[in-house]
Amino acid sequence: MSALQQWLAAHDARAFADLDAFLRLPSISARSEHAGDCARTAQFVADTLTRIGLTARIEPTPGHPIVVGEWRGAPAGAPTLLIYGHYDVQPVEPLELWTSPPFEPTVRDGKLFARGAVDDKGQLWIHLMALEAHLAVHGRLPINVIVLAEGEEEVGSAHLEEFLARERERLACDAVVISDSTMFAPGIPSILSSLRGLAYVQIDVRGPAGDLHSGMYGGAVVNPAMALARILATLHDADGRIAIPGFYDTVRTFPDHVRAAMRELPFSDAGLMHEVQVDALGGEAGYTTLEKLWTRPTCEVNGLLSGYTGEGAKTVLPATAMAKVSCRLVPDQDPVVIAQLLEAHVRRVAPPGVSITVTHLHGGRPWRADLQGPIIDAGRAALAAAFGREPVITGEGGSIPVVGDFERILGAPVLLMGFGLPGENAHAPDEWIAVDNVRRGMHAAAVLYEEYGRRASITSHQ
Amino acid sequence: MSALQQWLAAHDARAFADLDAFLRLPSISARSEHAGDCARTAQFVADTLTRIGLTARIEPTPGHPIVVGEWRGAPAGAPTLLIYGHYDVQPVEPLELWTSPPFEPTVRDGKLFARGAVDDKGQLWIHLMALEAHLAVHGRLPINVIVLAEGEEEVGSAHLEEFLARERERLACDAVVISDSTMFAPGIPSILSSLRGLAYVQIDVRGPAGDLHSGMYGGAVVNPAMALARILATLHDADGRIAIPGFYDTVRTFPDHVRAAMRELPFSDAGLMHEVQVDALGGEAGYTTLEKLWTRPTCEVNGLLSGYTGEGAKTVLPATAMAKVSCRLVPDQDPVVIAQLLEAHVRRVAPPGVSITVTHLHGGRPWRADLQGPIIDAGRAALAAAFGREPVITGEGGSIPVVGDFERILGAPVLLMGFGLPGENAHAPDEWIAVDNVRRGMHAAAVLYEEYGRRASITSHQ
Repeated sequence: MSALQQWLAAHDARAFADLDAFLRLPSISARSEHAGDCARTAQFVADTLTRIGLTARIEPTPGHPIVVGEWRGAPAGAPTLLIYGHYDVQPVEPLELWTSPPFEPTVRDGKLFARGAVDDKGQLWIHLMALEAHLAVHGRLPINVIVLAEGEEEVGSAHLEEFLARERERLACDAVVISDSTMFAPGIPSILSSLRGLAYVQIDVRGPAGDLHSGMYGGAVVNPAMALARILATLHDADGRIAIPGFYDTVRTFPDHVRAAMRELPFSDAGLMHEVQVDALGGEAGYTTLEKLWTRPTCEVNGLLSGYTGEGAKTVLPATAMAKVSCRLVPDQDPVVIAQLLEAHVRRVAPPGVSITVTHLHGGRPWRADLQGPIIDAGRAALAAAFGREPVITGEGGSIPVVGDFERILGAPVLLMGFGLPGENAHAPDEWIAVDNVRRGMHAAAVLYEEYGRRASITSHQ
Repeated sequence: MSALQQWLAAHDARAFADLDAFLRLPSISARSEHAGDCARTAQFVADTLTRIGLTARIEPTPGHPIVVGEWRGAPAGAPTLLIYGHYDVQPVEPLELWTSPPFEPTVRDGKLFARGAVDDKGQLWIHLMALEAHLAVHGRLPINVIVLAEGEEEVGSAHLEEFLARERERLACDAVVISDSTMFAPGIPSILSSLRGLAYVQIDVRGPAGDLHSGMYGGAVVNPAMALARILATLHDADGRIAIPGFYDTVRTFPDHVRAAMRELPFSDAGLMHEVQVDALGGEAGYTTLEKLWTRPTCEVNGLLSGYTGEGAKTVLPATAMAKVSCRLVPDQDPVVIAQLLEAHVRRVAPPGVSITVTHLHGGRPWRADLQGPIIDAGRAALAAAFGREPVITGEGGSIPVVGDFERILGAPVLLMGFGLPGENAHAPDEWIAVDNVRRGMHAAAVLYEEYGRRASITSHQ
């Protein structure tokens, strides 16, 4: 066992106690009433960075602040690694479906349950503890490090792109590592090679000026809830293919060898069906499930609200109906263009007698990795060291919109090395991270910094 | 001015003050937490009946109680009139759309605003005050009277039918009058000749065991909200005709002369569009608006709920989606059969990967009047006396399911003489009744009892 591992083992209880405090902060970025909690959480991250030996500053934005930590003491020729994470979390409704309260972290069956446990506080924490281990054991880091923790990832990272562009000199780096993703399966470390993008809109259908009696007006006044249902039903054809004109125009098919590798991963539809407890899967005809999840775009309803939703019966013809609709995107779909195509389609199919408002809530570009270079090699070595086996290369259906921004603005390759697991309930009640994966993650991160320093320094001297 | 009119004018302020107290009681029958309020409101009605000189009893049911008032002092040969109304009211959400709170009655521009103002407390009150006028002025009523006020009309009158059947001897009567409907237009008194029935269900679509991350699972796991939208979109064809197999099988077409009379009423689509503030109407192709509202069945969405409905964006694949759906029925559609056809259709079109629950919330039979006999003639005369012009014969799209029950169980014809007005917001925020119509209604009701006594007694002696 290395000195770093020994230090991490010796400080395990304190690491989890501090993570507990981090998870108790209800930093829900989508809810304006939690703005103060987000600010307090940013301060918590900054205080942690300072305590472990980095400089830290809190950068205000028009939304929630960005925390930047720095350590610049590596030898000349050593590379600079930017570690990105986010301290904000998803909303917690429906609260009644949480087994333990979302902001009271609880360990059950080797899982740490809390909102943000895996997405992304727990995974950001892995890096902070690995940095502390290096600084405590060696008094230094093997590479220069920038930690960038934002507070708006769950609401589309509205101010990060501008921040990266404005601060690109100070944030200049040779590689970026992000731990905000999921391993393919327990015990199988994974490097993510693709992410889907996102175009998220809210559709509001407005009919009569106020709610009407469904008996007195029903049959003549157009019902906004029924109009909305009919609009949503036009988004797919009978084969599950998205029927928005132009939607697939810029989709770049994944290479055959990537699709072939996906088919070799230990995956079964039956396993997924068992996991989410359904008796059949759906989606676009002609693709395997992993292809549907990783390589194909989607259009989903995320929320519906109209009329009377309480107990019993109320015979109302509702004045309005709302749907939250989001598309997952694949290269090279552009989120702005897709949102525009979606809006144009909705307006085209909406019936007379209602008015439509489409609000573009947020978007993110899809991304595909170039799987070469020292940061990828270091990631493979670090994961192998921590998990005892080579990582697999996976795709993921989720979105981390900023990944493309880092590559484009900072010109640095991104390693996506995540420690979540399938069924972790990110964005849902009972979110969790495996306690063992937190420990292995700290080990892997600590090794990553060493391996990257060794490989990138060698590379730069060649 | 008759002595009755003089008495009503002299006691106008007190009548409205007592109505104010009646309207302040939040007797929302659909919400179990208001069961106590419903009981208190039943007591209020019973106390009022006793005060004005009727006997009163409160009959418990498995739901909210029924109040029965009686006055049996008319001369031999005088008929018995049953006056039906309901003291329960609709839920009040969305509260923020009320200009003044629903249970704080407020008069603005000649309109009395409150939940229950027109549906039906205000209209029940009209009869109680007319009865009081007779008893105060003459010390007697010209006919025997039964007042039956129930507390479950807004939730389908679940226990009334059984009560009528069980008490049919004590409730035996020669005619029934119900004031729970709407005049065709201001100043145009109306007798309602048809009502639509109702079949109301809740559709719950359940997909995965819990909410999922829409990125990680979207595209392979069937989305219950999208499945629900696609199910709802199959309920109508492109011409607005209901596409549930068998739905129209028992529809009996309205006679040509009734449809012709409808076309002569002073109605314009533009007026309705202006009233509800829409720029187009919809519904079933091939029918006029009044035909759609009065003579054709409908299938409407009354409520939708799924996933995330708060501020901003949450990328969730919801576990469940719910719709409240109700059909308005015309003779001879049976509400039980229609609910079964609807359920069978929903199950047939639901995709694999979700499960469906259809809960039958309530139903009521459609009704068409036989427009003959002393109660109808008395109604015409009473309305002409109070409003200064002959009433028109109308249909209505709303449902009063008990009307058919009264005719069937008690064997008595029903007069529907209502004092609401178009735009009264029954079942919606800012419900109101015109103050002038309350006064004319009291006058009409007072004359009705006289005219009915005169005509029915004459009839019985012929």
